Amino acid sequence: MSEGDPRAPDVGIYEVSPRDGLQNEDEFVSTEAKLELIALLTASGLRRVEVASFVSPSWIPQLADADELVSVLRRSPGVRYGALVPNEKGYERLRAAGPIDVVGTFVSASETHNQKNVNCSIAEQLARLAPVFERSRADGIAVRAYVSTVCGCPYEGEVAVRAVVDLSRELIERGAAEVSLGDTIGVGHPNQVRELVGAVASEVSIERIALHLHDTYGRALANAQAGFEGGVRIFDTSLAGLGGCPYAPGASGNVATEDLVDLFEREGIRTGVDLDALVDASAWLERDVLGRRLPGRVFRARLGERERERRAL
Amino acid sequence: MSEGDPRAPDVGIYEVSPRDGLQNEDEFVSTEAKLELIALLTASGLRRVEVASFVSPSWIPQLADADELVSVLRRSPGVRYGALVPNEKGYERLRAAGPIDVVGTFVSASETHNQKNVNCSIAEQLARLAPVFERSRADGIAVRAYVSTVCGCPYEGEVAVRAVVDLSRELIERGAAEVSLGDTIGVGHPNQVRELVGAVASEVSIERIALHLHDTYGRALANAQAGFEGGVRIFDTSLAGLGGCPYAPGASGNVATEDLVDLFEREGIRTGVDLDALVDASAWLERDVLGRRLPGRVFRARLGERERERRAL
Repeated sequence: MSEGDPRAPDVGIYEVSPRDGLQNEDEFVSTEAKLELIALLTASGLRRVEVASFVSPSWIPQLADADELVSVLRRSPGVRYGALVPNEKGYERLRAAGPIDVVGTFVSASETHNQKNVNCSIAEQLARLAPVFERSRADGIAVRAYVSTVCGCPYEGEVAVRAVVDLSRELIERGAAEVSLGDTIGVGHPNQVRELVGAVASEVSIERIALHLHDTYGRALANAQAGFEGGVRIFDTSLAGLGGCPYAPGASGNVATEDLVDLFEREGIRTGVDLDALVDASAWLERDVLGRRLPGRVFRARLGERERERRAL
Repeated sequence: MSEGDPRAPDVGIYEVSPRDGLQNEDEFVSTEAKLELIALLTASGLRRVEVASFVSPSWIPQLADADELVSVLRRSPGVRYGALVPNEKGYERLRAAGPIDVVGTFVSASETHNQKNVNCSIAEQLARLAPVFERSRADGIAVRAYVSTVCGCPYEGEVAVRAVVDLSRELIERGAAEVSLGDTIGVGHPNQVRELVGAVASEVSIERIALHLHDTYGRALANAQAGFEGGVRIFDTSLAGLGGCPYAPGASGNVATEDLVDLFEREGIRTGVDLDALVDASAWLERDVLGRRLPGRVFRARLGERERERRAL
């Protein structure tokens, strides 16, 4: 999306379905299907897609094919591909696999959550990430830093705004191009998101702040709108709302890409994404790949609309 | 909710699950189960519940037991019970059945939708409702007027704001205590809701405007918040999001009571409703009555939380 383009999108979407979306799926999704998913996503106009994770295959067997996937990935022009790494070893695997444009790192704003997630303290996790930041800089690869549990922690409950602000600033100072504030368990509400974004933006440039919202309590879109009003222009989404919440079995996870795109486009906020292409991709993913009902609302409603139009012919 | 109570709710909820929620269910729900549902709803603190519809039993077989249900209904103190009527005949059935506090009437802001829904024009529908308004006034029963398709029509597409404003004013002038603006197919978006509420409020007192939102495209909560910001203080909801959208098979329908309550309470807006009691009611409805997955987000997430807490003990 060149800045000179008069039709440049007003918001950027960071699509996470191939990684964050799939990682909770029990049945292994073939590398071929993952590649097809990624191709459909970029064909819809999405310009940044997180395609893999280089955490230990024993942690997340679903993403164990990261090396192969990245090595055979057919890159689309203008698209930036991201992958998650937990530490230097993951970074080395990523570099050996093939070209990746965005290295995703993650740390929690809550000590207990960080401990449960990566088995070390926040300070230790930052230390582990130091070589990832250094080597990414040397290799000319952008670092995206996920900060999780920013609106609440499943173990500690409330998370201090101050902790989120400090951690975000720290990550930017260490070289992150962008911080993605994750409402991991979806408990955030609009006033809270507005306040949090305002607080982080007082120490981190607003252009570097992304929102990673979960729809567990149905508030992801209301929160996205609050974030937009607060100046955020980068939103993480997942096709069809793919991605469960491990702390609330059966609950929905990431905000659905189609739901966010449709909301924003109707509000006059350009996303640069073809909604119909996304709906096609979701229908394929649900029917041909996963064989289970996905939680996104807009793709379901659009499929219903199409069916109605077909019958009316 | 007496005005002198310092803890009076900030918003009023008009619960529609026993009527609007159930009406699309294929399998008949017993009168006994409906009565239990109503009892659970009022026990949670809900103060207005629409319990039945006196449309022709052949139209909506699910609600064919309206007469019996109203006749045996055990009223809770402080609760106002509502029922829908399409015309004078329905009103007579309602009056014969037993005491009802709120008579619900309905008309669409879109000619085609009105025609498909009740087989007559908007003007004809208003004429049919005239005796209902008259007799309600004489009988001292409040009339609630539903205006449907206010944000869009499944047949005509766009619906003019002017049509919604004129119809709302007309209904209030004819004696409706309140108009409930229905986004029947859930296509509305926050700016649109804000604009619509502002337009109606320029001709109808804002205290008389309710919002009846559907979550078909996932925007019901964002729209509710926009409505609240625009001054609306009455919201129609349905337990667990019960109530499909007939125009989008598989899509979700009414905004879930729990989702709205949790959003508002977290934003500091008092609803006067006990969320845990609602979650219990939803769990019962899903498991013991309907035996299928209901779309509400908050009750699902809360059940997950409870399960997690139970395991942690």
